[in-house]
Amino acid sequence: MTPLDITTDVVTLTEQLVNIESVSGNEDAIADAVESQLRALPHLEVTRFGNNVVARTDHGHAERVVVAGHLDTVPVHDNLPARRDDDNLHGLGTCDMKGGVAVALRIAATMPVTNRDLTFLFYECEEVEEERNGLKLLGESHPELLKADFAILMEPSDAVVEAGCQGTMRVDVITRGERAHSARSWRGVNAIHGAAEVLARLAAYEPRRPVIDGLEYHEGLNAVFIGGGVAGNVLPDRCTVSVNYRFAPDRSEEEALAHVREVFDGFEIEVSDSAPAAMPGLSVPAAAAFVEAVGGKANPKFGWTDVARFSALGIPAVNFGPGDPHLAHKQEELVPIEHLRRVEQQMRSWLEPAQGGARA
Amino acid sequence: MTPLDITTDVVTLTEQLVNIESVSGNEDAIADAVESQLRALPHLEVTRFGNNVVARTDHGHAERVVVAGHLDTVPVHDNLPARRDDDNLHGLGTCDMKGGVAVALRIAATMPVTNRDLTFLFYECEEVEEERNGLKLLGESHPELLKADFAILMEPSDAVVEAGCQGTMRVDVITRGERAHSARSWRGVNAIHGAAEVLARLAAYEPRRPVIDGLEYHEGLNAVFIGGGVAGNVLPDRCTVSVNYRFAPDRSEEEALAHVREVFDGFEIEVSDSAPAAMPGLSVPAAAAFVEAVGGKANPKFGWTDVARFSALGIPAVNFGPGDPHLAHKQEELVPIEHLRRVEQQMRSWLEPAQGGARA
Repeated sequence: MTPLDITTDVVTLTEQLVNIESVSGNEDAIADAVESQLRALPHLEVTRFGNNVVARTDHGHAERVVVAGHLDTVPVHDNLPARRDDDNLHGLGTCDMKGGVAVALRIAATMPVTNRDLTFLFYECEEVEEERNGLKLLGESHPELLKADFAILMEPSDAVVEAGCQGTMRVDVITRGERAHSARSWRGVNAIHGAAEVLARLAAYEPRRPVIDGLEYHEGLNAVFIGGGVAGNVLPDRCTVSVNYRFAPDRSEEEALAHVREVFDGFEIEVSDSAPAAMPGLSVPAAAAFVEAVGGKANPKFGWTDVARFSALGIPAVNFGPGDPHLAHKQEELVPIEHLRRVEQQMRSWLEPAQGGARA
Repeated sequence: MTPLDITTDVVTLTEQLVNIESVSGNEDAIADAVESQLRALPHLEVTRFGNNVVARTDHGHAERVVVAGHLDTVPVHDNLPARRDDDNLHGLGTCDMKGGVAVALRIAATMPVTNRDLTFLFYECEEVEEERNGLKLLGESHPELLKADFAILMEPSDAVVEAGCQGTMRVDVITRGERAHSARSWRGVNAIHGAAEVLARLAAYEPRRPVIDGLEYHEGLNAVFIGGGVAGNVLPDRCTVSVNYRFAPDRSEEEALAHVREVFDGFEIEVSDSAPAAMPGLSVPAAAAFVEAVGGKANPKFGWTDVARFSALGIPAVNFGPGDPHLAHKQEELVPIEHLRRVEQQMRSWLEPAQGGARA
């Protein structure tokens, strides 16, 4: 009855997952299918909260690793069901991130014994407001379930480790004026003209590119919205420039805000949104061993991802998954079949117990 | 049956006009009432087109003057019916411009003989898009009906002649960029940052104050809207600054546009709206005589009014009416009773035939 068989090959499994539509808020069916498949596996202890499914091994290893992926997708955009050609699997969620979920489920289904204890986490509502994010909610309600030495978030990363992530903060820079009829403009003060200096500072801004754990991050300070105006014949009394600051992991949210205040010194500022960066954490032994096992290469992560939530829980985390992250949220998203197979194979090699169990 | 009696005193008449609700598009009742009252007067030839009523004397004078007012108002804003106190009449349209219409109707009703021929015009839809403007439509369909040496538009002008009017032009100044994720902003071009120079030029702009026919006009170049932005994490690829240029009557629309293009040299510009200025025309004998008759004083008109439509028809025109123009379109609009009486008296004196009709 279930459309899902997690013992099948990773490409077919990705296809099955894609074909269970799971736009944020509608993860019931996919979570049910994932839960029932995992409950059939005797080496896993399965718990469910909402549409979040946690499955843990308990081999008694000293080291525990979280392998995580979200089950939801952005809205359908005429890109279902999945379509497969020789090289790629196409369709909603192939890249972000049912390919990564398929790899994790394959590991869960086919590796009853591993050289580290594993905590699989499949969660809901990553693509929407953070109040609904399954990882965030679970981290708050059941942090003990997520305890681990290291976490791998299987978000698309071109099948190369992306370490840490930059923080992101949105502030509104507001200028104020005084309304007047535009035919008698000398009686008012134009708030949009007052924003000239705000835009000048943005245009002249030189972003930092700090190197952390050997990775070069790249900050950015950008207006993402601007708005102002009352009527076609009225001097506007307010102009709002919404600015997005992407900051490297060597800055805390507080330091980031202090920097933004300094840049816009003299202007009114309202913070509308803030999320911390995550340090790459590649100096942690579990992380270093993982990078070594999957090719020895790591790139800095510029975008914000849920690795920052693990970081906030004290768990070093990296992004590692099949698919080009630039294709996420695009109608034409796809995942290369070669990525799916390679990432599964690399995870498998890293988790394979030493042969015979007794090599010196 | 009719709620209107144009032979009553000007304050009561204004009150009656105010109490016939006539928001733009709903002028049937007021136009019916005005038409039927005017048709009862043997010295007037009345024609009606839509809700526009034209009434002409034909005394055979060498000089003909249009006396005009619009019948419509902006939307009701909890400011009906009219309310009267010792000094003022309050309510929707008291100021803009049923006070002026009342004066014109009083002249029509009570001066069967005048020293100039008169064309009274009461028209619809002045407060909405110009495609519906009764004066504009009549000027196009029946220009012969409006032929005159001079026109008095009885818009509120603080009971002082306001001559000419400034032109108004709206242009969108557009900057373009290239979208990119704000976490990798170096891959895109921020169109909002590109508008820094547009705002800088606006902020530094020094408007002209040319003197024309002895009146000092005062131009203005102002951003009235600004907009740009795609999403909170995307570099915007377009920013639009809507600029309103108010230009003195010594500039044509073409010259005004050339000036705007010069100011924003190097930027993409789209004209969204344009209306010509009107020269004050105070050197025309009929206009000079009128100004002399009503107190000898004239101010420049900064805002755009329908005098520009008369001007475009080759008819010099001034604004002259009871009420403070700054109260137009405000919930608390009112007209001073003293204005109503004074403006009526001044119009009456100016139009009074010489006593005995045969003074040398």
